[in-house]
Amino acid sequence: MSDANALEALIQALRRLPGVGVKSAQRMAFHLLQHDRPGAQTLSYALANAAQAIQHCERCHTFTEATVCATCLDERRDASKLCVVETPADQSALERTGAYKGLYFVLMGKLSPLDGVGPHDIGLKKLFDRALDGTVQEVILATNFTAEGEATAHVISEGLKARGLHLTRLARGVPVGSELEYVDLGTIAHALVDRR
Amino acid sequence: MSDANALEALIQALRRLPGVGVKSAQRMAFHLLQHDRPGAQTLSYALANAAQAIQHCERCHTFTEATVCATCLDERRDASKLCVVETPADQSALERTGAYKGLYFVLMGKLSPLDGVGPHDIGLKKLFDRALDGTVQEVILATNFTAEGEATAHVISEGLKARGLHLTRLARGVPVGSELEYVDLGTIAHALVDRR
Ligand SMILES: [Zn+2]
Ligand SMILES: [Zn+2]
Repeated sequence: MSDANALEALIQALRRLPGVGVKSAQRMAFHLLQHDRPGAQTLSYALANAAQAIQHCERCHTFTEATVCATCLDERRDASKLCVVETPADQSALERTGAYKGLYFVLMGKLSPLDGVGPHDIGLKKLFDRALDGTVQEVILATNFTAEGEATAHVISEGLKARGLHLTRLARGVPVGSELEYVDLGTIAHALVDRR
Repeated sequence: MSDANALEALIQALRRLPGVGVKSAQRMAFHLLQHDRPGAQTLSYALANAAQAIQHCERCHTFTEATVCATCLDERRDASKLCVVETPADQSALERTGAYKGLYFVLMGKLSPLDGVGPHDIGLKKLFDRALDGTVQEVILATNFTAEGEATAHVISEGLKARGLHLTRLARGVPVGSELEYVDLGTIAHALVDRR
C-alpha cells in the first residue's frame, strides 16, 4: 500500500486485534486516515491509557484501575454468594439483569486443553482460596454453556465438592420470548431435565 | 464492564473502527489487556504515528509520508498512462500483478450520492487537471465493478471525453481459474460482450 511505512505499520498493528485479517486492517486504516483522524488519536490514547492503568482486582480478578474493584468493595453485596464467570463481559451481563446481589470471581478465561489453557492459567487456585475463605457459602457456576465452559464448571465443582459449599449452576432452558418451534433440540431437552 | 473507566473508554474508541460493534470491541479490549499488552502499546504508537506522518501525495492523492509518493517519482514509469482507482488497496492489487507500468490517480473514495459523496468529495477536479496536463494520453478507469464504481467511472469518462484522451476500462470477464458453472451469469454475459 504505497510507500507509507507508517501506514504499513498501522495495518500490521491492527491485525493483532482478534478477528481482524489483512483486508479488515486495510479498511480500518483507510477509514481512520481518510475519514476519522480524531478517532485514530482517541484510540491511540485509549490504548496507551488502558494498558497503563488497568490491572486485576485482588479479590475477584476482574479488570479495575484500583487494587480492589468497586463491586468487591460494595458492602451492600451479599458476601456469602460467589458467582464464577469467564469474562468481565459475562459479569456485566449478569449485573444488567439486576437479579444478583452477591460477589463475583472472574476467571478471565476458560479451560481449553486444545489451546494449552489449563487450571493454572485461569487462576483456579486463587478461586479455590477465595471460595474457601469461610465467608462464601454458595458458589454459582456461571461459565458459558459451551463445551469449554461446561468443562471449566466441572473442574471447579470437582475441586470444591465436599468442602461444605453449596455449588449451583445457572439453569439451562428456553430463552424468554422464544417459540419452541425455533429453539434447538438440545436446549429443549435441557429445559425438560431442569424443569421446576 | 467493571469500574474501569479506562476500559470503557477503550471499548468506545474501538467502536469507531468500521465494522466493530460493542461485542467485537469488548472482545478486542479483553484480548489486548489480558493477552497482548505489547500489542496495545504497538497499536497505540502506530495510530499516533500514522495520523501524524501520513498525508496525501500531491500528484496522485494516495497516502504517503512525503510530498510526492515514490510511485509518482519513479522515472521508469510511463507517464502517458494514468490509472484511476478507488483506494490505495486497489492500487496495491494492480501493482502486485506486475502488469502495469504507468502512473495512478487514487480517488480515495467513490461517488455515492446516497451517502452524500459527490464529485467534489472525491477530488474529480484534481483528477481532471492531472489527466489534461498534456503528458497523459490514456486514462484507464479501474474503479470497482460495483454500482458505485461504475457510476464513478461513468462520470469521469463523461468529464474527459472529447478531450483527445484515450479512455479505457478494465475488462470484465471470467476470473482466471474459475469453472463457468460456478461463475455468476452477469459475469458470463459481460465476458461474452467483452470477448476478444
Ligand atoms: Zn473485585
Ligand atoms: Zn503519488
